[in-house]
Amino acid sequence: MPYVNIKITREGATKAQKAQLISGVTELLQKTLNKNPATTVVVIDEVDTDNWGIGGEVVTELRKR
Amino acid sequence: MPYVNIKITREGATKAQKAQLISGVTELLQKTLNKNPATTVVVIDEVDTDNWGIGGEVVTELRKR
Amino acid sequence: MPYVNIKITREGATKAQKAQLISGVTELLQKTLNKNPATTVVVIDEVDTDNWGIGGEVVTELRKR
Amino acid sequence: MPYVNIKITREGATKAQKAQLISGVTELLQKTLNKNPATTVVVIDEVDTDNWGIGGEVVTELRKR
Amino acid sequence: MPYVNIKITREGATKAQKAQLISGVTELLQKTLNKNPATTVVVIDEVDTDNWGIGGEVVTELRKR
Amino acid sequence: MPYVNIKITREGATKAQKAQLISGVTELLQKTLNKNPATTVVVIDEVDTDNWGIGGEVVTELRKR
Repeated sequence: MPYVNIKITREGATKAQKAQLISGVTELLQKTLNKNPATTVVVIDEVDTDNWGIGGEVVTELRKR
Repeated sequence: MPYVNIKITREGATKAQKAQLISGVTELLQKTLNKNPATTVVVIDEVDTDNWGIGGEVVTELRKR
Repeated sequence: MPYVNIKITREGATKAQKAQLISGVTELLQKTLNKNPATTVVVIDEVDTDNWGIGGEVVTELRKR
Repeated sequence: MPYVNIKITREGATKAQKAQLISGVTELLQKTLNKNPATTVVVIDEVDTDNWGIGGEVVTELRKR
Repeated sequence: MPYVNIKITREGATKAQKAQLISGVTELLQKTLNKNPATTVVVIDEVDTDNWGIGGEVVTELRKR
Repeated sequence: MPYVNIKITREGATKAQKAQLISGVTELLQKTLNKNPATTVVVIDEVDTDNWGIGGEVVTELRKR
């Protein structure tokens, strides 16, 4: 029944990589807390680098350095 | 003043259906908890089926079965 | 498979009221978008009035007026 | 180390305005709570007006008045 | 730089189990997407079973069966 | 109409500091994007240091160093 939200910058994650994140985190919750995988929900948000900031700076600018 | 976030897979919800969700949940909060509809905020996120997992599997794959 | 997060101020919602929110929003998603209730997840966050602001003011202060 | 999520309707915020939000909120957390800006993360979600409701109504409709 | 939010019901997860979730998901993001662990943030929300619903029912009630 | 969620570790932020965050971020949205302060909602989540990880480590442990 856990709900997991993974936010990453939109920088080309493939379908296969996203599938790995989903299966990996579902498995981790089963292994660690015995959570039922059947009702574990994972949502991945890919966020434009213009909309993500760290250290007070926009990631789009950080990527140019 | 409540804030409601509804996450669904992006699979063709129409403007009219989304309007119904917004009015329906606002009404539910008023009826149940006497919350002021004027300041009730509802945000709907439509998520690509590649980015949604359940049971460790990507919804895009589940939909093919 | 939808995921719904309802945030309200912590001001005495009862177990019965929270149960009504959960069943009500699950039903709304089924009626409106034909979403499967069995995998619809609803999480209610009750937030201290000191931690909720509207109009630039803390709700705890607004409640005193 | 704080994490800030800002949700606004998608109505033409520019890159420069989003950069200002990111630097502004990071600075606010440093000034107010002495939080380290280097690990402060800010994510801006721009939401379609069809997917945002207030007062039980869709923002797209409110904007027409 | 990823941000991960894990929501589970509050049913006795230990400090050690939560530490395992944090290190496990950070490692998964590094392995799968080459994300820098140093800036990967993980936040775990433990939610009262009265405030979590699935299938239109409150988890507190489901646990009694 | 913006919605802002600020997540910080629970390490003694005072009512006054939280009020400053709420007024500060509301003002920032008005100044930067001309958003109406009256309907700007800010929610602060204070998260136990056991439940927050960065760099794959639990903040509780990082604080001991």
